[in-house]
Amino acid sequence: MKYLHTMVRVTDVQASVRFYCEALGLRELSRQDYPQGRYTLVFLAAPGDEDAQVELTHNWDAQPYDGGRNFGHLAYAVDDIYAACERLAGHGVTILRPPRDGRMAFVRSPDNISIELLQKGAALAPAEPWKSMQNTGSW
Amino acid sequence: MKYLHTMVRVTDVQASVRFYCEALGLRELSRQDYPQGRYTLVFLAAPGDEDAQVELTHNWDAQPYDGGRNFGHLAYAVDDIYAACERLAGHGVTILRPPRDGRMAFVRSPDNISIELLQKGAALAPAEPWKSMQNTGSW
Repeated sequence: MKYLHTMVRVTDVQASVRFYCEALGLRELSRQDYPQGRYTLVFLAAPGDEDAQVELTHNWDAQPYDGGRNFGHLAYAVDDIYAACERLAGHGVTILRPPRDGRMAFVRSPDNISIELLQKGAALAPAEPWKSMQNTGSW
Repeated sequence: MKYLHTMVRVTDVQASVRFYCEALGLRELSRQDYPQGRYTLVFLAAPGDEDAQVELTHNWDAQPYDGGRNFGHLAYAVDDIYAACERLAGHGVTILRPPRDGRMAFVRSPDNISIELLQKGAALAPAEPWKSMQNTGSW
């Protein structure tokens, strides 16, 4: 038995790929349009970790999706949590839970999927601007 | 960057471990109670695939959780999709999308998290009772 992917539904493929790839750092592995079913599937993964994927499902005629509390988040380890948050912020993503502790941060995708970032290995030394940045909203 | 886990919230740890471990086939890696925060965390993974985990969060005082459409499902490859569905059904889990095609099935966790099972490699030859089993509900 083997984990394949977590599937999330997205209302805007372009905005989602910008978030998951350019801002978060995943890589697009494949993309396929299904005109007959009017949907597009995009598979993503962290570079070098292609076995654990995220599947984006874009139904062409979908309305914005609601969220629910039974799903929590997707979590990724990153080499440098400050660099990761800086890249996300540079793409206009709000760091909802800034890495004040040099260890953990939370953001949300354009469709409100919560993403946890965890520093690989030991926490980094607390550093500005993260150290004194307040929480925003919920995650 | 590396995928760590998908976190889902559960209202009943015992029922959830029965579903995810005994019925679905994941293995419990660790469990920790946090009495001060009144929550329990359980980490699960497919045997031999411990790098891709599921985190169950049980908030002791939580009400039943609602679901949302932005989250789709967790997907696992299995060695024998008929054996997997038989084990799930034997634990009282409804096979919402039976593997009529010898390839794909869907079930839901006690908290309505959708789980996709995909046959590893080529589809199995269609076989009863799955071949003529109708869909139930949604997934």
